Amino acid sequence: MEIEISITHCGVCHSDLHLIDNDWSVSAYPLVPGHEIVGHVSAVGSEVSYRVGDRVGVGWQRSACHACEQCARGDENLCANQTATCVGHMGGFADRIRVDSRFAFALPEGMNAESAAPLLCGGVTVFAPLRRWRVRAGDHVGVVGIGGLGHLALRFARAMGCITLAFTSSPDKRAEAERLGADEVASSTVPREILAHKGTLDFLLCTVPARLDWISYLQVLKPGGTLCLVGAPPGLLQFPASLLLTHQRAVCGSDIGSPGAMREMLAFAASHDIAAQVETLPMAKVNDALDRVRANRVRYRMVLVN
Amino acid sequence: MEIEISITHCGVCHSDLHLIDNDWSVSAYPLVPGHEIVGHVSAVGSEVSYRVGDRVGVGWQRSACHACEQCARGDENLCANQTATCVGHMGGFADRIRVDSRFAFALPEGMNAESAAPLLCGGVTVFAPLRRWRVRAGDHVGVVGIGGLGHLALRFARAMGCITLAFTSSPDKRAEAERLGADEVASSTVPREILAHKGTLDFLLCTVPARLDWISYLQVLKPGGTLCLVGAPPGLLQFPASLLLTHQRAVCGSDIGSPGAMREMLAFAASHDIAAQVETLPMAKVNDALDRVRANRVRYRMVLVN
Repeated sequence: MEIEISITHCGVCHSDLHLIDNDWSVSAYPLVPGHEIVGHVSAVGSEVSYRVGDRVGVGWQRSACHACEQCARGDENLCANQTATCVGHMGGFADRIRVDSRFAFALPEGMNAESAAPLLCGGVTVFAPLRRWRVRAGDHVGVVGIGGLGHLALRFARAMGCITLAFTSSPDKRAEAERLGADEVASSTVPREILAHKGTLDFLLCTVPARLDWISYLQVLKPGGTLCLVGAPPGLLQFPASLLLTHQRAVCGSDIGSPGAMREMLAFAASHDIAAQVETLPMAKVNDALDRVRANRVRYRMVLVN
Repeated sequence: MEIEISITHCGVCHSDLHLIDNDWSVSAYPLVPGHEIVGHVSAVGSEVSYRVGDRVGVGWQRSACHACEQCARGDENLCANQTATCVGHMGGFADRIRVDSRFAFALPEGMNAESAAPLLCGGVTVFAPLRRWRVRAGDHVGVVGIGGLGHLALRFARAMGCITLAFTSSPDKRAEAERLGADEVASSTVPREILAHKGTLDFLLCTVPARLDWISYLQVLKPGGTLCLVGAPPGLLQFPASLLLTHQRAVCGSDIGSPGAMREMLAFAASHDIAAQVETLPMAKVNDALDRVRANRVRYRMVLVN
């Protein structure tokens, strides 16, 4: 079921830095990070529907058991026995990779390869919760953090017909957030600015792995609203239960997306012309690329090109 | 739109004690608690669909604005301008009450009045989240706390075809919990017993307003599972965000139920023969009744009878 991919592009995600730094105590060296891979199929094993030459993308997940309850209902990203593209395996900062073809996804025709690469992890990570939580046209959606994930979340939410509110800690990103599709922009760190939007959001997607003012953010939700985290802040989440009870709010997490969500995201991105805003560097300049990502200087996703 | 009800029964809820004690700083004295009311319509105003003699029930909510976004979509229990039956109004520990007929509900024919009274607050409080979170037959449902709310939650979950796990801090309630429909029973306070059920529940309903071991309880959820609070524990909820992210868990609160949920609950209870297990005392013995509720001695709901 495996295919070999000749890699043309690979996005750089903050997770790659976490692996390099062994922040999650799962790294084994030598380590080849990279999990936003675009390339052409260069060889196929048995029972593979792709043909040599097909253009495919690969994201964070590399395999699942295909037998458990989660896999059976199409939530392979929740499989307890899943493996990741660049954890215990050599990833996409390379010229070739072999993967399970069930975790390689055909790129829609006409989709630009370099701006598609970041969709394969960053894109699906923000798209999947918007779908799973049934965000609809007309809903008010907030996005905390305007970076690799946040800028895609704004574009997806706009394309879904939502009214968007961007929270950013960078004053210089305010105008950019509006250009990216934010109807309004607020500080992500000044409680007064957060609370100015009290009771206005149906869904709030938090893309930054930072300790935030959860008590203020929960109050920004409408009754029945949901706060969804896609980045893990350090320490403990702390807030009074009354903030969940009195307005029936929910707090949840979301973890990448299933193969089904990946296909849906790619089709949605193609039909709504959604692409990541990227900077590119040649694969040989990978260390420069990592430095720029580490310094939070990239607008908004770095993509390495072979 | 108002009706007068000649009260035959009124359940006693812990919320009544909170009002008596002014725990929520909303009480005004003289105070008449009581918000699990059953009686007969004794007088009707204009635009009322009930007729004198109809048997109706009234729960926690007394009014809503009927104009806001929440009311418009049938979530009147989330209306910012709602009022409560016995907050700022005289409640059901009485012989008569006047209420907005839109918050009085016809009791299904044949439903026993005394065991129906607790359905009007306790019942809908546990039924509404089971429905809103789409709990289905075959799902594994946990209930923390086997009291006025918890015993009804077990009965509803069983009738919905769920496999149930009861958590209780009272060793003497274990056999009772099984009799009430629990497929399994565990300690609600011993982490080892809680964690013995790791990864097994689709939905966990916490009915006790107590500080619990949230970190263990979250791990009891399956990937994609939901922890729902219907009682507010003191202090802060505290847990690492990773417990929400890695298995896409959610934590939410639920607050009574809408009029729509109330009607659905009464119909469901009637068709599945679900009633509260009650003790009764005459209305004149209200102080004895309150003492028994305060001492947590009631199995499982006290109902005052006129």
